Amino acid sequence: MDHAKALQAVERLMIEIVESEVDVLREASRHILTAGGKRMRPRVTLLAYEAVGGDQLDVVLPVAAAVELVHTATLVHDDINDHGLVRRGRQTINAIWGRTFALLTGDFLFTKVYTLMAPYGDLNVIFAQMTSELVEGETLQAAAAKEGKLNRETYACIIAKKTAALFAGAAKLGAKLGNGTPQQVEALYQYGFNLGLAFQIVDDILDLIADSQKLGKTAGIDVAQGKGFAVAVVGNGAHSAVVVAEEPAEDPAKALKRKLLEGSYIEEGWQQARQLAAIAKRQLDCLPPSAARDELLRLADAAVEREY
Amino acid sequence: MDHAKALQAVERLMIEIVESEVDVLREASRHILTAGGKRMRPRVTLLAYEAVGGDQLDVVLPVAAAVELVHTATLVHDDINDHGLVRRGRQTINAIWGRTFALLTGDFLFTKVYTLMAPYGDLNVIFAQMTSELVEGETLQAAAAKEGKLNRETYACIIAKKTAALFAGAAKLGAKLGNGTPQQVEALYQYGFNLGLAFQIVDDILDLIADSQKLGKTAGIDVAQGKGFAVAVVGNGAHSAVVVAEEPAEDPAKALKRKLLEGSYIEEGWQQARQLAAIAKRQLDCLPPSAARDELLRLADAAVEREY
Repeated sequence: MDHAKALQAVERLMIEIVESEVDVLREASRHILTAGGKRMRPRVTLLAYEAVGGDQLDVVLPVAAAVELVHTATLVHDDINDHGLVRRGRQTINAIWGRTFALLTGDFLFTKVYTLMAPYGDLNVIFAQMTSELVEGETLQAAAAKEGKLNRETYACIIAKKTAALFAGAAKLGAKLGNGTPQQVEALYQYGFNLGLAFQIVDDILDLIADSQKLGKTAGIDVAQGKGFAVAVVGNGAHSAVVVAEEPAEDPAKALKRKLLEGSYIEEGWQQARQLAAIAKRQLDCLPPSAARDELLRLADAAVEREY
Repeated sequence: MDHAKALQAVERLMIEIVESEVDVLREASRHILTAGGKRMRPRVTLLAYEAVGGDQLDVVLPVAAAVELVHTATLVHDDINDHGLVRRGRQTINAIWGRTFALLTGDFLFTKVYTLMAPYGDLNVIFAQMTSELVEGETLQAAAAKEGKLNRETYACIIAKKTAALFAGAAKLGAKLGNGTPQQVEALYQYGFNLGLAFQIVDDILDLIADSQKLGKTAGIDVAQGKGFAVAVVGNGAHSAVVVAEEPAEDPAKALKRKLLEGSYIEEGWQQARQLAAIAKRQLDCLPPSAARDELLRLADAAVEREY
């Protein structure tokens, strides 16, 4: 099975596992799952497995599907908390089915994650750990936004937990399942961690500069809610206190966006992301050459050189 | 370790596992976990383990804690969807910390459930299955309430999934871990299933007839939201269509409650619950006599003969 076929199999697995006699759970789950997405995390799992010499892709498919499913579950719950209306170019579940069913669909996806992972013994320890960190990261972000206290340090902690832990775990799970050496497992973990950081910084920059249609979700939502890279780099403390609107009627979020676009913040963010991607790539030096390793290198480039 | 000590150890384990550097997750989790509760589900797990001859209670404690934690996670999310303000005699998490943090705390508890279960191999298949059913049951309930289509059949399906599946799973997990014979495991599963049905019917009746202070949660909330036994037994179709308010100004929920209290519905519900508890108890005939079996018998009586 080649990589493209494996990814298709992951898609099928996700669609199958959310089968339910409860219509709204099945339909809402499939609505978000068939909307596409970059599938970065399951790609990382599959490639890490292959890069350490794993050659039974069937074995790793449910784990890759579980990794994408847990990411999807948190997106569904995020969209409730952020009142997001568009996700992956489609209406969000809360926009169509309402908040109650969105919450339950997210919970349902969480339970299906563990249905997929149930046969994997000790890998569940890694999985549960990264999932806890993911929720902790989301919570830190919500708390920082609420208190208007987002700064660079908090931001680093947030993205380490909410994004990098999952990318790192995705890589580690693949590497372990492929019977990588402890050194290879650690290298792939570090690859995933740094890739995750880079990916999130770029995501936050794109939230600021890209248009909603290209993103497939409402742009500028992070800034408006006091979240993300843009808010963090402007300074310690609430962005509304830092950015003074030049016109009295100017919306604080718009004022912040203007200030960011005028300054060198965006370029600084890209720089950081590129450095992190370079660090990620260097971790792969200890792996034997392979098509999977090449693809992991390309993935790190693609994470920072993208427009949506 | 005796049963009371084991239950205390389960409490400690739950408090420990929700340790987090993220203040709100730790505090909100402990807020709900230290509020008490009947702990029916972990009791069932511990007793099922002992009833089949398990004698290393240490082994079963994390599973019992996971069972109660998954129940608690769904309570936290229920309180968001139902706008519940009081739970176990305390303010709900959403009332204190707001909806966003309540949602994330529920998610956090879900992840900790799997942290506890991670070492238990194949038991995770049972656990994931019962948790999916739980969410399906909650969703069926929300859908029936929204569409005003709750009837006896739907109600039976809802409580089978949202309550009985968890009680049944709790018993099965304990019995499997205690190396019960297949017949014993099945008997304890059936015990849990019937006990869960009985427990839920009584819960719904108490929602109707008890006062909020005794219940430790807002009474009458199910009826007001078109849910629960009371609404189901009145007839097929929306209760607002079935119950005609005698005074034009009468609230439909109040009219329903009046009608139920006047009729024989409540007594019919108790009867059903007592029959189910009796069925549950009969399942235990195949187990050797033991203190644990006696306690399981008492638990079935207590589930139906209670005032809160």
